[in-house]
Amino acid sequence: MSKLPNITTSIFTVMSKMAAEHNAINLSQGFPNFPVDEKLTEIVARLAKEDIHQYTPMAGYPPLMTKIANLVNRSYQRNIEPETELLVTTGATQGIFTTIQALVENQDEVIVLDPSYDCYEAPILLCNAKAIRVALNDDYTANWENIEAACTSKTKMIIINNPHNPTGKILNESDIEALENLLEKFPEIILLSDEVYEYITFEEKHISVHTRPQLRNRAVVISSFGKTFHITGWKIGYVVAPEQLMKEIKKVHQFLVFSVNSLAQAAISEYLDSVSIDEISIFFQQKRDYFRELLSKSRFELIPCEGTYFQVVSYKAISDENDVDFCKRLITEHGVAAIPISNFYENGKDLHLIRFCFAKDNATLEEAARRLCNV
Amino acid sequence: MSKLPNITTSIFTVMSKMAAEHNAINLSQGFPNFPVDEKLTEIVARLAKEDIHQYTPMAGYPPLMTKIANLVNRSYQRNIEPETELLVTTGATQGIFTTIQALVENQDEVIVLDPSYDCYEAPILLCNAKAIRVALNDDYTANWENIEAACTSKTKMIIINNPHNPTGKILNESDIEALENLLEKFPEIILLSDEVYEYITFEEKHISVHTRPQLRNRAVVISSFGKTFHITGWKIGYVVAPEQLMKEIKKVHQFLVFSVNSLAQAAISEYLDSVSIDEISIFFQQKRDYFRELLSKSRFELIPCEGTYFQVVSYKAISDENDVDFCKRLITEHGVAAIPISNFYENGKDLHLIRFCFAKDNATLEEAARRLCNV
Ligand SMILES: CSCCC(=O)C(=O)O
Ligand SMILES: CSCCC(=O)C(=O)O
Repeated sequence: MSKLPNITTSIFTVMSKMAAEHNAINLSQGFPNFPVDEKLTEIVARLAKEDIHQYTPMAGYPPLMTKIANLVNRSYQRNIEPETELLVTTGATQGIFTTIQALVENQDEVIVLDPSYDCYEAPILLCNAKAIRVALNDDYTANWENIEAACTSKTKMIIINNPHNPTGKILNESDIEALENLLEKFPEIILLSDEVYEYITFEEKHISVHTRPQLRNRAVVISSFGKTFHITGWKIGYVVAPEQLMKEIKKVHQFLVFSVNSLAQAAISEYLDSVSIDEISIFFQQKRDYFRELLSKSRFELIPCEGTYFQVVSYKAISDENDVDFCKRLITEHGVAAIPISNFYENGKDLHLIRFCFAKDNATLEEAARRLCNV
Repeated sequence: MSKLPNITTSIFTVMSKMAAEHNAINLSQGFPNFPVDEKLTEIVARLAKEDIHQYTPMAGYPPLMTKIANLVNRSYQRNIEPETELLVTTGATQGIFTTIQALVENQDEVIVLDPSYDCYEAPILLCNAKAIRVALNDDYTANWENIEAACTSKTKMIIINNPHNPTGKILNESDIEALENLLEKFPEIILLSDEVYEYITFEEKHISVHTRPQLRNRAVVISSFGKTFHITGWKIGYVVAPEQLMKEIKKVHQFLVFSVNSLAQAAISEYLDSVSIDEISIFFQQKRDYFRELLSKSRFELIPCEGTYFQVVSYKAISDENDVDFCKRLITEHGVAAIPISNFYENGKDLHLIRFCFAKDNATLEEAARRLCNV
């Protein structure tokens, strides 16, 4: 009866809802609780009065396309063509769904790392294709040998997420080289690189697929302004891909949404002129450091966080409940919502880990940490 | 190599682009050129300063969900439950794509009328299903006998579009009865009713699927605020379906976009309190009448228009070029862009008909008509 029999309401919806019902501090679903830059909201308020309320062209609002191309080209010394290599989407999620629908066929296999963010599996299943999960190592580094071993003649795509949600891990130089070597052996495989946290990285250097000619020539790179500009509700993402792949992606996009919110596109376009994108990482690094310091007095064990705005912690020293039950009790008894990491594993593997979002104002982090130190 | 080998850039993109290049009056792609209601843009400007920039819940911004349910319930004496029967989407297009992805399976057949708006075919093909086209009668009424003859055990869905784009035709009481009788014989078939022009109807009474208990219990009804409130760029649509179907649609939506632009949702939510929705039809009826009157002095033959903001005309008395060439020449030689109706036929059937959008300010309609009277 159902094409997606195993899919239920996403954990982000479940936990955010439960947090609201119990008036808990919501560190579960990843979204900021501090105000958006006033410069940006002023742009919106002004543009709202202008003639910007009809369909933009299908692939995106042309001035925004130019600005995004400039941003990518400047950030990564690329030279992408907005006309042929860029698409603006309803958030990264739509970019990912559309890419998979456009490129993955019946009976294909797609390699997805385990654990992974939860949005890759459904579009693969809807293509009658198979998601082949390959476990990360215990320290959340990628196991390139196992990934290579999983590649077959049916493998159409490998999906990476760098920086990685939920673990906060970043692929390092030797990872990227291993990936290049692997793909050299499999010339047909397409790389989908989900880099929505590209501008939220700390001590480790983020090596974007954009910077690697051997990779980007066969890669679809996904990003989003939601995380970068604290506007997760705007749902404006973008896809960069070589023309040949982009042609197929646009075919699907054209009949999937046709175009994307015009006012939001125009506002971001203008905002990109004035914003200093490198400050985002500095801003979030302070948040991370502050939150980790506050939690250092708790009984939670802190896992390293190299990028994203998520902090994974182990509660092994506190309880041996399963992580979903622990998260529920954290809401009801301690007033803090988190995400159980088992949610990101194919088989719900439970390592007694949970994830907090630290994209919150300091008062919220302080009160959350105060409560967590009592657990 | 391509999952959609026969799909090219949509005619709307082609014609709008060509219109811009030749500085022609663009009556091709359907969007208004008059300003959005100031009440609405003021709401946006004010809300932009508020805390409305993060993810809304997956199915929609709750206050908007309530208002939409009220609108549907009031317009059609229904009693839909926003929690279980409603979904807010990135325009009607995403609602249609998502519904088809959720409900149509490998090898299924979907009945699509011919001619039809162009967004139904691609999502069906992406499901490895088959679009079975059934021709409308010469006067654009539905041929229920032929539709019934096309129904097989593989038929999963029938798609109707009422009012119909491009023909402007509305299903009358006997059509709706024929549809009810037909579906009674095929208890498994789901009805997808695309009613995005529901509030743009004239002398003929629009009978929404919402008003028919036998139909709505098995129907997915799609609508959009883009046409109704002159905001085609906002991309806010909605889907109403019985809980059992909606559950499946939401599963796909969750991983296709997750959620929809928060500011646009909040603004429409507030606007719905003050707007008089019945005035939309009066407004567009005046446009239609004025445009038809202006064209009555031309050599184009006007086809009746019962709903939508499109006027189909025959140019048989003017030329025997094919309709695509005629449209191109209309742009380059006469400075007016239209849509060739062959585009809406499965096999590009060319009846020497073209479509004008009359959702334009009077000065634009006058100048366009002046040019068209010279053709
Ligand atoms: C789309 S809701 C989930 C938001 C997010 O990216 C996360 O919390 O991991
Ligand atoms: C999505 S572009 C096409 C707009 C439209 O509905 C039409 O012109 O028919």
